Amino acid sequence: MFIPVPIGFIHSPYTETSSIPKGLGARHDAEGVLEIGSEFETGLTDIDGFSHLYVLWLFDRAHGFELIGAPPSDNRPHGVFATRSPRRPNPIGLTVVELLRRENRQLFVRGVDMLDGTPILDIKPYLSSIPNQALRRGWLAEAESAQ
Amino acid sequence: MFIPVPIGFIHSPYTETSSIPKGLGARHDAEGVLEIGSEFETGLTDIDGFSHLYVLWLFDRAHGFELIGAPPSDNRPHGVFATRSPRRPNPIGLTVVELLRRENRQLFVRGVDMLDGTPILDIKPYLSSIPNQALRRGWLAEAESAQ
Repeated sequence: MFIPVPIGFIHSPYTETSSIPKGLGARHDAEGVLEIGSEFETGLTDIDGFSHLYVLWLFDRAHGFELIGAPPSDNRPHGVFATRSPRRPNPIGLTVVELLRRENRQLFVRGVDMLDGTPILDIKPYLSSIPNQALRRGWLAEAESAQ
Repeated sequence: MFIPVPIGFIHSPYTETSSIPKGLGARHDAEGVLEIGSEFETGLTDIDGFSHLYVLWLFDRAHGFELIGAPPSDNRPHGVFATRSPRRPNPIGLTVVELLRRENRQLFVRGVDMLDGTPILDIKPYLSSIPNQALRRGWLAEAESAQ
């Protein structure tokens, strides 16, 4: 295994978990900044050409994990690997953001759902997507249609 | 930070990096099995309802990182955060797979691009996609159109 290192930190409008939109129909239009450490800035070369990025980050304010839990979008419990719960065996979060612009080692993005100060573990280009018609969304689709 | 733990391991047809399809036009149709540790099996509850999953995994046979490198799909060097290079500051891989079926703690999937025996760090439901027409694919689109 390896010891994770933060490659940077997220500036986000959210300072409390309760203020992050969650559950069915939650929109993630919030803008934020991914501030990359100066020692990693060279790794951002050419990132400007991508419209969307994967951000891997640390749930640094979650403690422990539970294998079954009820997410905010449903009142039935689900397995942790079928949800985006922060209380995971490896507390890694994943968010797709839209890259608005880069200024040196700051990436201005839209779509943040992380808390302010969250450590960033990795950034990858978002390259392709599964066609919507090929997607099944499990319990989430059921929960939506039950509303 | 945290100490990553494997939640399971990947059975894949690929035993050497050189046998994994890479570069432009690479197809990832290979089938494999995500075998989850018995202590985490409960976390798979309800995962069967999703057609596609994110798999976070460890580049366990990569050593060190480089901030700039030439990927197989281009002869120009790019920043590591604009590529899927295994030599990353945090050696975490990300793959979207199609879930074919579940048998207890084995998930049969299509689309593996990991080496046999790769440790799994996390599984998350793949929920939504960015419309293709809204995507810009940076240097990769340029490299493709130059062919």
